[in-house]
Amino acid sequence: MPNKVKEIWKSGKAVVNGWLAIPSGFSAEVIAQCGFDSVTVDMQHGVQDYQSMVQCFQAMHGHPVTPMVRVPWNEPGIVGKVLDGGAYGVICPMINTPQEAKNLVQYAKYPPKGTRSNGPIRSGMYGSAGSYQQTANDEIVLLPMMETKTAVENMEAILDVEGIDGVYIGPSDLGFSYGLVPKLDREEPEILKIYDKIIKECDKRKLYPGIHCSGPVGAAKNIGMGFKLVTLANDSGIMATAARQWIDQTRKDSKGKA
Amino acid sequence: MPNKVKEIWKSGKAVVNGWLAIPSGFSAEVIAQCGFDSVTVDMQHGVQDYQSMVQCFQAMHGHPVTPMVRVPWNEPGIVGKVLDGGAYGVICPMINTPQEAKNLVQYAKYPPKGTRSNGPIRSGMYGSAGSYQQTANDEIVLLPMMETKTAVENMEAILDVEGIDGVYIGPSDLGFSYGLVPKLDREEPEILKIYDKIIKECDKRKLYPGIHCSGPVGAAKNIGMGFKLVTLANDSGIMATAARQWIDQTRKDSKGKA
Amino acid sequence: MPNKVKEIWKSGKAVVNGWLAIPSGFSAEVIAQCGFDSVTVDMQHGVQDYQSMVQCFQAMHGHPVTPMVRVPWNEPGIVGKVLDGGAYGVICPMINTPQEAKNLVQYAKYPPKGTRSNGPIRSGMYGSAGSYQQTANDEIVLLPMMETKTAVENMEAILDVEGIDGVYIGPSDLGFSYGLVPKLDREEPEILKIYDKIIKECDKRKLYPGIHCSGPVGAAKNIGMGFKLVTLANDSGIMATAARQWIDQTRKDSKGKA
Amino acid sequence: MPNKVKEIWKSGKAVVNGWLAIPSGFSAEVIAQCGFDSVTVDMQHGVQDYQSMVQCFQAMHGHPVTPMVRVPWNEPGIVGKVLDGGAYGVICPMINTPQEAKNLVQYAKYPPKGTRSNGPIRSGMYGSAGSYQQTANDEIVLLPMMETKTAVENMEAILDVEGIDGVYIGPSDLGFSYGLVPKLDREEPEILKIYDKIIKECDKRKLYPGIHCSGPVGAAKNIGMGFKLVTLANDSGIMATAARQWIDQTRKDSKGKA
Amino acid sequence: MPNKVKEIWKSGKAVVNGWLAIPSGFSAEVIAQCGFDSVTVDMQHGVQDYQSMVQCFQAMHGHPVTPMVRVPWNEPGIVGKVLDGGAYGVICPMINTPQEAKNLVQYAKYPPKGTRSNGPIRSGMYGSAGSYQQTANDEIVLLPMMETKTAVENMEAILDVEGIDGVYIGPSDLGFSYGLVPKLDREEPEILKIYDKIIKECDKRKLYPGIHCSGPVGAAKNIGMGFKLVTLANDSGIMATAARQWIDQTRKDSKGKA
Amino acid sequence: MPNKVKEIWKSGKAVVNGWLAIPSGFSAEVIAQCGFDSVTVDMQHGVQDYQSMVQCFQAMHGHPVTPMVRVPWNEPGIVGKVLDGGAYGVICPMINTPQEAKNLVQYAKYPPKGTRSNGPIRSGMYGSAGSYQQTANDEIVLLPMMETKTAVENMEAILDVEGIDGVYIGPSDLGFSYGLVPKLDREEPEILKIYDKIIKECDKRKLYPGIHCSGPVGAAKNIGMGFKLVTLANDSGIMATAARQWIDQTRKDSKGKA
Repeated sequence: MPNKVKEIWKSGKAVVNGWLAIPSGFSAEVIAQCGFDSVTVDMQHGVQDYQSMVQCFQAMHGHPVTPMVRVPWNEPGIVGKVLDGGAYGVICPMINTPQEAKNLVQYAKYPPKGTRSNGPIRSGMYGSAGSYQQTANDEIVLLPMMETKTAVENMEAILDVEGIDGVYIGPSDLGFSYGLVPKLDREEPEILKIYDKIIKECDKRKLYPGIHCSGPVGAAKNIGMGFKLVTLANDSGIMATAARQWIDQTRKDSKGKA
Repeated sequence: MPNKVKEIWKSGKAVVNGWLAIPSGFSAEVIAQCGFDSVTVDMQHGVQDYQSMVQCFQAMHGHPVTPMVRVPWNEPGIVGKVLDGGAYGVICPMINTPQEAKNLVQYAKYPPKGTRSNGPIRSGMYGSAGSYQQTANDEIVLLPMMETKTAVENMEAILDVEGIDGVYIGPSDLGFSYGLVPKLDREEPEILKIYDKIIKECDKRKLYPGIHCSGPVGAAKNIGMGFKLVTLANDSGIMATAARQWIDQTRKDSKGKA
Repeated sequence: MPNKVKEIWKSGKAVVNGWLAIPSGFSAEVIAQCGFDSVTVDMQHGVQDYQSMVQCFQAMHGHPVTPMVRVPWNEPGIVGKVLDGGAYGVICPMINTPQEAKNLVQYAKYPPKGTRSNGPIRSGMYGSAGSYQQTANDEIVLLPMMETKTAVENMEAILDVEGIDGVYIGPSDLGFSYGLVPKLDREEPEILKIYDKIIKECDKRKLYPGIHCSGPVGAAKNIGMGFKLVTLANDSGIMATAARQWIDQTRKDSKGKA
Repeated sequence: MPNKVKEIWKSGKAVVNGWLAIPSGFSAEVIAQCGFDSVTVDMQHGVQDYQSMVQCFQAMHGHPVTPMVRVPWNEPGIVGKVLDGGAYGVICPMINTPQEAKNLVQYAKYPPKGTRSNGPIRSGMYGSAGSYQQTANDEIVLLPMMETKTAVENMEAILDVEGIDGVYIGPSDLGFSYGLVPKLDREEPEILKIYDKIIKECDKRKLYPGIHCSGPVGAAKNIGMGFKLVTLANDSGIMATAARQWIDQTRKDSKGKA
Repeated sequence: MPNKVKEIWKSGKAVVNGWLAIPSGFSAEVIAQCGFDSVTVDMQHGVQDYQSMVQCFQAMHGHPVTPMVRVPWNEPGIVGKVLDGGAYGVICPMINTPQEAKNLVQYAKYPPKGTRSNGPIRSGMYGSAGSYQQTANDEIVLLPMMETKTAVENMEAILDVEGIDGVYIGPSDLGFSYGLVPKLDREEPEILKIYDKIIKECDKRKLYPGIHCSGPVGAAKNIGMGFKLVTLANDSGIMATAARQWIDQTRKDSKGKA
Repeated sequence: MPNKVKEIWKSGKAVVNGWLAIPSGFSAEVIAQCGFDSVTVDMQHGVQDYQSMVQCFQAMHGHPVTPMVRVPWNEPGIVGKVLDGGAYGVICPMINTPQEAKNLVQYAKYPPKGTRSNGPIRSGMYGSAGSYQQTANDEIVLLPMMETKTAVENMEAILDVEGIDGVYIGPSDLGFSYGLVPKLDREEPEILKIYDKIIKECDKRKLYPGIHCSGPVGAAKNIGMGFKLVTLANDSGIMATAARQWIDQTRKDSKGKA
């Protein structure tokens, strides 16, 4: 099964990514039918764990989205488990050094490129028998997160690590580490300059930079800047934003009756 | 603990109600913070069962919403269980005759008004010890659904049943039973005439009519007509509607780049 | 596998029964090691459903307690499911007439005594293959609840129904239906007179009367009166009672320091 | 989305049906890839409830099997919920009279053929928006179980009920009700004669008879007799049969070393 | 939302802490109403994981207890997840060196004090929007466990680590590491001497020492010694202790009849 | 409670081990009744996590199998949790150096042999009170996995590590690391030579070598070679293999009718 994310990138376009914080197969299958290219289960900050990830993946199977995961940490046990569980992509938080990026690659790639253990209990269901192990190293997307000052200082060395497909920017944490308020769609020139450099350095290496956004305005702007994967806020955030707006409108239009 | 729904009604206003189809405490607590007056776990058409209802109720506790349930059917076992589980209101589908409405009242009220069995395992936590059983018959809201031609024909007899607090209109099923397409915000004069009559007959008896809507426009319109409880579509519907819109806008604003 | 409850009754003694409201296999296995003769999963007022019952039964398997269930209602689907799930005894709420008792027997017994459907998915694990269906009608305990004025008025006719093993008194509901406050350990002469009569009528028919209590004092007293199965309050009640006492003692003994 | 079961029947062939007793999306998706035409979640005797059914359905989505359910009982609440949850077929136990079959049809069909309530929370995902309600009455398979002497006596009247697609034989219960040992693959002439008659009466009415089997031998024999849907034992039974055989062979071939 | 634990400490008093081993929101909300000041979900030795912690926290929300966690290990992924999940306090096992304590502080504090990643999915619900990130570093309680000989040898260096609020003694492990039997309420002079020193060294630094106890007697004694947080045994232990006592009393008072 | 695995080894025989990938107590209790000596919950490649392991263990309790776990990684938090949860044996993946083996022993043994923390929440239920801590170091089986070229090169040093009971071969990963296709039952002379050496070196040290197989043929062959623990493929694999075979036979014997 080819990875839709890689196909979109090959076509020169950007990927519009969904983000699951709600630990429910039902909300996952709803999101999977809304038009996203890929959908990521957030095991770091989302209310997700391994079993809820499996349920989300099962529920999204058969819908045209690439299932990805943000792992809680760069730890070999969980990186292996999410890949066996069916992830076509891994976003890994807080990769600050080339060594940390190399470790991620080791955990996620089969020999000889890495040390991932064989046993793709769900991902082995993709394609014909035995084919998964032959294609996984090529098909799975690896995106270390660049979200601290240290990571920015190590940018080029990190991007030189063989086996990654790009980086994923966490604007809140990135700003936080520079002493700024944690928020998503950033406007500070010093941060935008970093974004520019990331995009250029990725382009040089045929890598794909991604970024976490808070809605369509920021997402489109970031695509315009050159980002190749944008996340449109998470499921619960979209729901809450819309619910608040609908309630407000209902009360307003009811003119004091509700 | 007084029932906020009854307080709003006493103040002459309409209740804005949320609706939970996603079986997750997390999405429930998100919804509970958006500004709804009451939130209903939908055990009939939602992806909900008793245990997911309990988790939703636990997660909403401490937030300023009245927890209600739509039960899957007018059956004494489940009516008792949802009340013991903490529901402050019960919406019951497909009540077509006065006898069915009387049965619902019997299942939901303690003696001498009904035959509900004592054992409020979670609802007994409300208020001081032993107080729940003294106030439950007065505080809990009972809304039989009026959603078929038969029910409309029996309207006045149903509304005369002692112990109900109003009725709840299911516009899809109501239209369906009249040979119309099942949809929520209806415009057919024959249906609007039924709505009018329900509102008037409720007013006569100091009962409160409620209705299921598909968004703020229909909700505000229905409040304007005289409905006293409006549901603003369910959690997954709000999420999907907004997600589709955000994705579309992102793609459009990206001008072919996504 | 012989039913320990029946063996204790044959020996002339009373059964000390535990009661599970917490939907957790772990708390069930803890309770199963405390010294109860039988442990009942309360699907009526407890925070339990079918799956949590299965988990409680699995966790209690291998511990020396007879697994029983209080079903949410006298409905054939759930009576069959709890028996298939491994129950050795069924307590059924709100049996007010002989016909309701006969229905319960029909739901719970295999042909020719009843109409229970064959498929003991977990209970078939007891004993050697195929033996379960031959012994289930004899081994499983059926206890309709006698907990309303109507039931008391029908007492002898209910006790005459073939296939039941006794009755189970719900003191709260019984008092409630007589216009008294709902509580467990009752002292009212009119209620005690009913208890007396139930015990005598059971004795006449070699049936075993059981009763729900709120602690050891009431339980021992009821055993003294002739009850043959006493429930010692539920798991969460025992826990809360002791926790409150321990906290109070800690604060008191800390003399203002906590 | 057309129903594969109906397509196979139209082609003149028999459906090979899987059966899920294990409440796990993972075992469901494994079974869904083994070659079955349809897979039925058994909510009557299996260790399944509504939420585990949803998980099984989500996990089977995208695999080429028709999802069906055996409901625990002929009760409107659960029949509606399993259809809303995505079932393309309903097998209903213990239908003994034409009235019971008519009730099942009422519960399962939208108006004007029945009284099913509108709200296909998951099944509405099939096909384009709004299309489900237009096709569900035609696409969904309804199979009342014929599994008692009473049902056999009412055979023709039951088969005459409009809206059913056939019947499903439960050989254990059928034998049980005739005073025989409960088992699946039956050889008694009196039972085989009943099978013959069911097949003929179904053929007359263009209905499709199905039957529960215990393995490939019985299944193939029943297909040869004219049954149009055969179940090959449940998931846990297949697993246990094979596991026992593998262990035995391992120990035997190890010649006393294990 | 101010942290009640810190407020009690400021008032000079000791905190009475509950401890959850049962993975159930229901038992958590029962415990949360018994009078504890704080309640800790034990992810190390309790039958708890991240999702059960979330359910316990959701169920305790709205009750007047501070929610805390004992993490399974000093690992950045899980420390971040429990804080995002709503913990107001983290107890971390087996902190034996100042470096390990520093790591814990790094994992648990936002920049510039640490490297915690921003994304308080549930804890962000506390207070007004955005306020959490501004107060979390101050409000959250960090208690490394001092429970080995090595830790005792490093006591002063550990207590000097900036960002911790005290230490938490695990008497069983502490005794174990000194070659003593593992048990809770210890009397050995060598251990009591260690306790004394811990209390004094904490006092010097305005830190708060806590300790795990087995009941009210030990708890009150430890408060008397100067401990500022005492845990009264876990939920399942309290339940089992009381259940055993009630059963024994019932049997004893029944004089051979049970 | 003595460990059956150790008893079988003492008797000179090999252990036939089951393997659970399905996260369900029900499938676990089915497998536990098939004749295995031990059953291992696979938390590395199986669809298992801590809570599903607990449910599998609870469901297997009372059945004559030794409960074991393959942990996801050699990490102290999870090694402690599975032992507290009731594991009598731990298989640990990817132990490539003596230091890694020593770490595993440290995590799994109580002082003075290791640093495992005291709190056997479920395993403490085995035997009489307090006895578990005295026998656990002796009764629990520790099997580091030898499954890379590096591990083979360190074979003797790893086997010299005090506290392990043998090693467990992962044939797929072992082959993978030697540049071969990942599969279970291997025939390559270079691999068989490694097996031979492992068996001999284990024998020298009175250790017990185990190996993962794909069915009875390979298992019996490996027992013949001298392996002392063989795994017969996992639950889902056994089920799928048999289901495919049954379906094929049904279709074949139906001669085009299915």
